[in-house]
Amino acid sequence: MERRLKFAMVGGGPRSFIGPIHRMAVRLDDLADLVDGCYSHKDDWRKLIERVRGKVDFLTICTPNDSHFEIARAAIEAGLHVFCEKPVSMNAKEAMELKRLAARRRRIVAVPFTYTGSAMVKLARDLVRNGELGRICKANVEYVQGSFRKVDPNEPTDARIAWKKDPRRSGPSCVTADIGVHAAVLVEYITGLAIKSVLADVSTFSSGTVLEDDASVLMRLEKGAKASLVLSKVATGEENGVRVRIYGEKASLFWNQEDPNVLSVKYPFEPERIYKRNAPYIAAASPLSKRLSRIPAGHPEGFIEAFANIYREFCAAVRDGREADFPGISEGVMSMKFVDAVLKSAKSGSRWVRL
Amino acid sequence: MERRLKFAMVGGGPRSFIGPIHRMAVRLDDLADLVDGCYSHKDDWRKLIERVRGKVDFLTICTPNDSHFEIARAAIEAGLHVFCEKPVSMNAKEAMELKRLAARRRRIVAVPFTYTGSAMVKLARDLVRNGELGRICKANVEYVQGSFRKVDPNEPTDARIAWKKDPRRSGPSCVTADIGVHAAVLVEYITGLAIKSVLADVSTFSSGTVLEDDASVLMRLEKGAKASLVLSKVATGEENGVRVRIYGEKASLFWNQEDPNVLSVKYPFEPERIYKRNAPYIAAASPLSKRLSRIPAGHPEGFIEAFANIYREFCAAVRDGREADFPGISEGVMSMKFVDAVLKSAKSGSRWVRL
Amino acid sequence: MERRLKFAMVGGGPRSFIGPIHRMAVRLDDLADLVDGCYSHKDDWRKLIERVRGKVDFLTICTPNDSHFEIARAAIEAGLHVFCEKPVSMNAKEAMELKRLAARRRRIVAVPFTYTGSAMVKLARDLVRNGELGRICKANVEYVQGSFRKVDPNEPTDARIAWKKDPRRSGPSCVTADIGVHAAVLVEYITGLAIKSVLADVSTFSSGTVLEDDASVLMRLEKGAKASLVLSKVATGEENGVRVRIYGEKASLFWNQEDPNVLSVKYPFEPERIYKRNAPYIAAASPLSKRLSRIPAGHPEGFIEAFANIYREFCAAVRDGREADFPGISEGVMSMKFVDAVLKSAKSGSRWVRL
Amino acid sequence: MERRLKFAMVGGGPRSFIGPIHRMAVRLDDLADLVDGCYSHKDDWRKLIERVRGKVDFLTICTPNDSHFEIARAAIEAGLHVFCEKPVSMNAKEAMELKRLAARRRRIVAVPFTYTGSAMVKLARDLVRNGELGRICKANVEYVQGSFRKVDPNEPTDARIAWKKDPRRSGPSCVTADIGVHAAVLVEYITGLAIKSVLADVSTFSSGTVLEDDASVLMRLEKGAKASLVLSKVATGEENGVRVRIYGEKASLFWNQEDPNVLSVKYPFEPERIYKRNAPYIAAASPLSKRLSRIPAGHPEGFIEAFANIYREFCAAVRDGREADFPGISEGVMSMKFVDAVLKSAKSGSRWVRL
Repeated sequence: MERRLKFAMVGGGPRSFIGPIHRMAVRLDDLADLVDGCYSHKDDWRKLIERVRGKVDFLTICTPNDSHFEIARAAIEAGLHVFCEKPVSMNAKEAMELKRLAARRRRIVAVPFTYTGSAMVKLARDLVRNGELGRICKANVEYVQGSFRKVDPNEPTDARIAWKKDPRRSGPSCVTADIGVHAAVLVEYITGLAIKSVLADVSTFSSGTVLEDDASVLMRLEKGAKASLVLSKVATGEENGVRVRIYGEKASLFWNQEDPNVLSVKYPFEPERIYKRNAPYIAAASPLSKRLSRIPAGHPEGFIEAFANIYREFCAAVRDGREADFPGISEGVMSMKFVDAVLKSAKSGSRWVRL
Repeated sequence: MERRLKFAMVGGGPRSFIGPIHRMAVRLDDLADLVDGCYSHKDDWRKLIERVRGKVDFLTICTPNDSHFEIARAAIEAGLHVFCEKPVSMNAKEAMELKRLAARRRRIVAVPFTYTGSAMVKLARDLVRNGELGRICKANVEYVQGSFRKVDPNEPTDARIAWKKDPRRSGPSCVTADIGVHAAVLVEYITGLAIKSVLADVSTFSSGTVLEDDASVLMRLEKGAKASLVLSKVATGEENGVRVRIYGEKASLFWNQEDPNVLSVKYPFEPERIYKRNAPYIAAASPLSKRLSRIPAGHPEGFIEAFANIYREFCAAVRDGREADFPGISEGVMSMKFVDAVLKSAKSGSRWVRL
Repeated sequence: MERRLKFAMVGGGPRSFIGPIHRMAVRLDDLADLVDGCYSHKDDWRKLIERVRGKVDFLTICTPNDSHFEIARAAIEAGLHVFCEKPVSMNAKEAMELKRLAARRRRIVAVPFTYTGSAMVKLARDLVRNGELGRICKANVEYVQGSFRKVDPNEPTDARIAWKKDPRRSGPSCVTADIGVHAAVLVEYITGLAIKSVLADVSTFSSGTVLEDDASVLMRLEKGAKASLVLSKVATGEENGVRVRIYGEKASLFWNQEDPNVLSVKYPFEPERIYKRNAPYIAAASPLSKRLSRIPAGHPEGFIEAFANIYREFCAAVRDGREADFPGISEGVMSMKFVDAVLKSAKSGSRWVRL
Repeated sequence: MERRLKFAMVGGGPRSFIGPIHRMAVRLDDLADLVDGCYSHKDDWRKLIERVRGKVDFLTICTPNDSHFEIARAAIEAGLHVFCEKPVSMNAKEAMELKRLAARRRRIVAVPFTYTGSAMVKLARDLVRNGELGRICKANVEYVQGSFRKVDPNEPTDARIAWKKDPRRSGPSCVTADIGVHAAVLVEYITGLAIKSVLADVSTFSSGTVLEDDASVLMRLEKGAKASLVLSKVATGEENGVRVRIYGEKASLFWNQEDPNVLSVKYPFEPERIYKRNAPYIAAASPLSKRLSRIPAGHPEGFIEAFANIYREFCAAVRDGREADFPGISEGVMSMKFVDAVLKSAKSGSRWVRL
């Protein structure tokens, strides 16, 4: 019989955005039992780690960005596996330190680049791997939110937004570290091509922050491919618009996380094809996509299922040591190099900066 | 502190379609603990009820249709609340008996007319209630699946489909009892208007069954409103197409369960409005829709969340005795009257039949 | 060199809805020269026919419904071909008389069942003909408009709507004769199956008319196929919603005239395919669809192009006597039998009535 | 009575893409008579201008890019108004020369930046002008085609594509001059903000050309606004994807030319609104949009209507001297400055270049 996992949480109280999502995701597939946590005061987490050391399998970290690194480091040193919110650190240097530490202590780190967990993103990656698109030339990704415009002027700023505007909590980057990293990881995950260099133009359109809330980023990938990202927290009226377009020599694909159960593939000489999650033909195109679907085609899965897929793979790795497909510290390191490079490029008047 | 609920299940083993959905739905919101169950053999359920009598709050029933009534009756008589899959019985007479029994024993019965649990269906109902559409004239609903066409001729029929074709397990109706009831309940739920009479033309297009797998149903509702339903299990290529259009004197609305996070409202003299689940304006339009959303707008919820909303309301009623919004035995009775009337109309050459 | 055609018009002045469309459609492809017309007073048309007799190839008739038959008959007797708005007459008897007369005088009659002219409807028909859908089981068609709700209460009723509510001008049917005929013709055109009998429930929801402004119609087609139509002039907020779904044993198709450049085909075991008008693969799937496209894929064509396609085929038949693909008096007769049968069924309490 | 206009054409024979579109656009609204033309050999155009001098009102120029400037200059010098395909010249210097010449000779020049002619783009511009979006911050525009991938390897290259790959005919730019100019003009037209500087990364992914077939362009606009463009001829499977997103402080808008009859506007605190072309509320929001619609809402207009709108406004200016709304030589000059700047930036390793 499968050993049942236990875990603890730091941060992510009931009024936070992301804490409840972690808990729902774990429960959805009944993966592990939450046995302890400290949700409100940052100072308690050291005691928590002492308490749960040797008693839980992993620690989930949902605090504001500035404490991710420190907590993750302590947890790994205490022998815990770690499921740590993005960005994993304030910069690439810290992320690399975590990576080295995790390797040395043989601890597993997951970082919830949520959209890579979507069954249709798995399919997208496998279509690219199987050569369905041919050589990849270009990736165009939008990740646009209007959250910084969804602020009632008569109300105090929502606490869930306020800390993101504060460099002490959020770090040196806002839109790039908060959502740009998702876009960068998606591009590498789907195309299988590493980002080599970036060029950025960033802006601060909203009040109350010195951090960038809008960015346009050009990227050069391996093998001569290119990419263009548009990132925004001030895209008025957008909710959580993640729209990914990948163009290959033979076909292109489009995925929109707000309509996540479908994937469009377009061809020059054939009708566009709309793949549906968990339809009969999915198993052949992407066994992983099939395996990470819970319910039949036509019965929509959503954000929580994508999140749960990351926990599912992470827990399999933790429990069985088996090979699994989830974003980890390597993606964490790459994403922080991406953030550092975007900021450096923006400061230099939009020069190309190598990752 | 809230008392934690306990429940048991009959039917719905790990390889069934609906059993895992019940369990995921309950876990998603951490509503109750599953403490016992009999998943494989129909004969065991009496022993299960004996075992759990006085020890669990409710029994979830996920067996094939032919045993719903008997098990539900026994459970209620054993003092359990019941969460029973639709159709609750083989005919209206049995459903009414359940209703009387539940009233007498003061037991609560929920029946998962899943789509009524969707946050956007709640919004639809409240927009109608608030007069946004004016007097309702017409409802046009499609509920179309291609599942009876999704049968590989080289494979034995999927067990999840086979029993639905067998009148001994499924009852005297296939498409009407299996999915038509969802459409009928949605019409009444959203419009607030009772179905008065129906007229039907049914067909059996697929092989291997004597039951109807396609139906066109016209309906007359209270207050002079009308409705048209198209129901099918042989709508090749459709997954789970539930498309609801409600037309009032002032506006109309459209909801599609395969894209469940949006609701469209159209006006004669204003642009169409697309409501998004859990957007800032939802709280004012429908407090219930707001309350039954878990995650922010732009982060899709899906089928499991709609299902979980029914459990959430049912559990609140069971635990606290508070007024809650979920489909119960009244909807169960109405839906079986609808099935009986459709079959009677079809047999009589499409005459109008009162419910 | 091609002989250039000449034509005259009755009705359809510059302020009418349909007159300008006829003229734009003819000009778009430079098919014929409009040389005479009487646009305002009904009484002038006999003189017009005298004037143009022997001088024009055809007469276009755009008057209100009550004069279609009389003018068409006179035009044919004067030796003119006729392009006559639908409905071609007030009832099937008149339509049959026109058909006999046209046959005897060897005159060609076109009736603009506009949507059959769309390049993607041509494709739909050819996919069915080529067996792509397998045996057709079911057709579900909506033709819903909100025009009777788009009436500013502070304004006198638009003249373009007023006559449609008046049985002296419009005839014994409103929604069925005005738009239901399009739906009926589309079903026969795409499926290739004749309508055998109909059953209808009709309503009058708007004020100012005794005619039906909403209808639900069930149909039985040849070879055991069935159909369901919903027709409305009071579908508040709808503009011109023509949505056609055809289900076969092997695949199904969907076409929406408000998004007319795409056609969706769904399969049980393959991804949905979205065909684009005039894409490279269209020529093989439907040479006619290819031939009736003017501009490249991705450059939308619209209503006028569909209309022009009917004129294009009609003019080819008039000029060259060649076989062409356009709706003519046979469709005119069938559509009036359909109207008569719908009215008869509605009056009889929704009995099945043979066409 | 209105004087009827006459015009002649250079280039644009029946097998070209754009020539027939010009003729259909002029005929649609019956704006002018085509009385002469030279369609096949480049050398004849001087004789044509001699022939039509004083006899036609304007000359339409549809030749490959390399002769636009020379022909336009000669036509203006001969006293003709000019309707000249984009790009109007091989560089900004020539375009400015045309502008000076046209001013001196009081001749009107139209350049068909087609999409600015769409009724819904007019609405977009007017919504911005009326302050509906508040201060504009960001514009994200895709103009992506897969035409360079739609090349059957077993066939000789389509002549309509071949010349675009040849710098002698096409000029120093391919994707930027051919379609990028549309995107740049759309941004200025809708936002009312001038492009101040650009930064570009360009690629040549297809074979058979030294010109850029893919470009990512960042832009800085007046008043601190920014823009991002992605342009491609190698976006496999795309037909003619022009997708425009404009973000303001109060709202944002989205328009997609492949679905041109709708315009979406999104707000932070209200449901998204979908405007429909020629719906009752359009007249108040944009009288120009209303005036440039021909047929009722729900009856799609397309590419030809947008094109015809440019001719309609141009012809009004030519005939009546009245103020009209169409893209002219100023847009021609700006677009060539944009092309020059993109090429210069790309050559300099993606530096910012002022227009």
